[in-house]
Amino acid sequence: MAHSAIDHFLQENLEAYLQETLRLCAQPSVSATGEGVVACAALVEEILQNHGFETWKIEGYGNPVIVGRAAGRSERTLLFYNHYDVQPPEPLELWDSPPFAPQIRDGKLFARGAKDDKGEFVARLAAVDAVRAAHGGALPCGVLFVVEGNEEVGSPGIARFVQDHLDLLHCHGALWEEGGLDFEGYPGTSLGRRGILAVELEVETLSRDAHSGSAHLLPSAAWRMVRVLASLKDENERILIPGFYDDVKPIAELDLELLRRLPDIEPYLRETFGLRGFVGGLSGFELKKAVFNPTCNIQGITTGYQGPGTKTVIPAKASAKLDFRLVPDQNPTDILQKLRAHLDAEGFTDVRITHSDYMFPYKAHPDHPLVRLAAQAAEEVYQKPYRLIPLNGGSSPAYAFAGPLGIPVIDAGVGFGIENRTHAPNENVRIQDFLNAARHIGRIVDGFAALET
Amino acid sequence: MAHSAIDHFLQENLEAYLQETLRLCAQPSVSATGEGVVACAALVEEILQNHGFETWKIEGYGNPVIVGRAAGRSERTLLFYNHYDVQPPEPLELWDSPPFAPQIRDGKLFARGAKDDKGEFVARLAAVDAVRAAHGGALPCGVLFVVEGNEEVGSPGIARFVQDHLDLLHCHGALWEEGGLDFEGYPGTSLGRRGILAVELEVETLSRDAHSGSAHLLPSAAWRMVRVLASLKDENERILIPGFYDDVKPIAELDLELLRRLPDIEPYLRETFGLRGFVGGLSGFELKKAVFNPTCNIQGITTGYQGPGTKTVIPAKASAKLDFRLVPDQNPTDILQKLRAHLDAEGFTDVRITHSDYMFPYKAHPDHPLVRLAAQAAEEVYQKPYRLIPLNGGSSPAYAFAGPLGIPVIDAGVGFGIENRTHAPNENVRIQDFLNAARHIGRIVDGFAALET
Repeated sequence: MAHSAIDHFLQENLEAYLQETLRLCAQPSVSATGEGVVACAALVEEILQNHGFETWKIEGYGNPVIVGRAAGRSERTLLFYNHYDVQPPEPLELWDSPPFAPQIRDGKLFARGAKDDKGEFVARLAAVDAVRAAHGGALPCGVLFVVEGNEEVGSPGIARFVQDHLDLLHCHGALWEEGGLDFEGYPGTSLGRRGILAVELEVETLSRDAHSGSAHLLPSAAWRMVRVLASLKDENERILIPGFYDDVKPIAELDLELLRRLPDIEPYLRETFGLRGFVGGLSGFELKKAVFNPTCNIQGITTGYQGPGTKTVIPAKASAKLDFRLVPDQNPTDILQKLRAHLDAEGFTDVRITHSDYMFPYKAHPDHPLVRLAAQAAEEVYQKPYRLIPLNGGSSPAYAFAGPLGIPVIDAGVGFGIENRTHAPNENVRIQDFLNAARHIGRIVDGFAALET
Repeated sequence: MAHSAIDHFLQENLEAYLQETLRLCAQPSVSATGEGVVACAALVEEILQNHGFETWKIEGYGNPVIVGRAAGRSERTLLFYNHYDVQPPEPLELWDSPPFAPQIRDGKLFARGAKDDKGEFVARLAAVDAVRAAHGGALPCGVLFVVEGNEEVGSPGIARFVQDHLDLLHCHGALWEEGGLDFEGYPGTSLGRRGILAVELEVETLSRDAHSGSAHLLPSAAWRMVRVLASLKDENERILIPGFYDDVKPIAELDLELLRRLPDIEPYLRETFGLRGFVGGLSGFELKKAVFNPTCNIQGITTGYQGPGTKTVIPAKASAKLDFRLVPDQNPTDILQKLRAHLDAEGFTDVRITHSDYMFPYKAHPDHPLVRLAAQAAEEVYQKPYRLIPLNGGSSPAYAFAGPLGIPVIDAGVGFGIENRTHAPNENVRIQDFLNAARHIGRIVDGFAALET
């Protein structure tokens, strides 16, 4: 049976894939600073070629995007999205071994990128090799890799890259960069992510800060920004921008059912964040459902004097960074227009929107065959139920593939991930999790050709 | 006649007083950093002794307070408040000559402290010497100098210093540190200052910042602070703290009359601050009267991410610095209690007031004989009417002398002051203004003994 052949191959060749992970992690590739990214792109291309992939290095979307393609017996093709760039390794003094001198100890591989996302990438290559070996040297389905180099700086070019390469990227389903153990060690995935509209608002009421002894005369930018923000959301968390909720879909019955099955995360959140209570005083099932509420978050406010002590100034300028998390089928460009219209209607014509970026919401159907395949495979590997989260509160550029390519994307449920210290010092992956991830992915590649979609 | 003898003495001895100013300004005395303050206190004491004053160096209230006393033929005593500390001189590169290497050029004396407040102090010494000379070597009234060293850091110890030295400071009237030409070059004074209550508010909703993908779950300190601030003042500038206006006195008829006589500062403010409009849309006489409105100003807000671009965080903490400017007879300690009660009543029991400091409002009567004497003297020296401003929007520790000593204080109308670049690079005083200030002050010292109070 193919599954045991896959497992056998992976167990036998584990050391080689760990060495490959070490080699890739030894190459810095910090997109925030540019350190090593060009060399890392070349290394990724070489590695894909070594594993039998035809490759393309595509420029013009930030750091090079590396595409790898391997044909299969079926025309059906599975796309893997990964990235070769990493977060900056600082603060260096908190690492027990240097971030770009990877080291295996205590059953774990330590390096910047060990988890996010170089380890995940190599685990997938291992899975593909294992499936190929289990099928006598030929893949049962086509496999496409898209390995980009700007993920840690927000993937600014990826949506345009997809739009420009629809033929090259033609496929029937995709697995996003990572996955798939939750805080209790259960495998699972979210079926979608909320969209996001991030904006920066600025207002200037004076050409320079004034003495607060004139506060009865001179208009304050700080007060004006408080008024602007207060106009956006009421005290019951209802967003007051006219038309904001127009495109919000009701929660489907099946999603409600999935929400009911989810574990109770209240104790975990209470402890992690020292909470006195949740937003809106919600608890229980109401709190689980709240992910289907769009939000308006203040990322930060900048105005006036922020040093020690007192400074008697009237701030001339104020700015606020906001993000709106959007649910299906809200459209961030539409919400941006409605925000501007709201500001104008409230008399805040002097408040400028100086920056905006966005991602669309995206959600797969819980009954999609690819979801069922990932669930089945995970339950076989982990011997635990695969938990389906109907919607994740965050956002990802997975929508940029799902929409234009017309495919389902399993956004965060295939790979490894628990206590990995992602983005932090001593990032690591347990060898056993690496192996299990490859076994899980191998089963999905093995079964993908036969899916009825 | 005494006035012409005073003027003659000052003209003859001007060079010596300028040299004394240069010597005093050459001694750094930056209270914010401590640079040179001890040496400067000693120099001030020496200078006072050189001018015939008995002196006290009083410790325990921050940098030493130097008191100088000279008896007069009358028991009536006039107090001069001055300070020997200066603002930091930075940015140094914007000075045409070094801040502590004083220089006379183009009819001006350039140095840090030339205006604020070393030049003012020496001009007063010159005036006292001139009066003494004009009266055959004996002062007609007693003169007290209080020269402190913490003015530029908010005079934190001065109120307690006065309370502890009521006997030493016994006097019948006081002139505050500076004066006296307004933006159009007219002499004048404000008859009082608003009080101030400065507070810092802090709120913490999470033990650390969280990802904004959880904004439907986790309470935001930024939003909470926006709600707190919005609860303090309505959109018509009415402060919503219960009882806030209880002790506000109506504007007296005489003060309304003085307000009517004041020049129109709207064009000046519009140009200086690039205004589109004034607070509350006020103009004309309503705008002049607004100084009698207490205010609630936001000095600054600190919360969340303030760097470039976007960071998807829910801020765990938020703080805001506020100042309330208070009018007679509001009491800042009473307002602080009312603010706390308001926060509690609104459910903001978790919002802490982490810092507070304050000054009381103070206002002299426009018909007080000392005010009339200062006006008469100024009109003789400047040949222009002395402008009386019933209330200045700012605050000063003059109240700390006026109340406990039971005396009128002319807060800002005796001395020099126009285009002096106070607190800025190239601080300077025009020699002619220095001389005129000494002539004005000499007339006040000359006439003080005979005042009917």
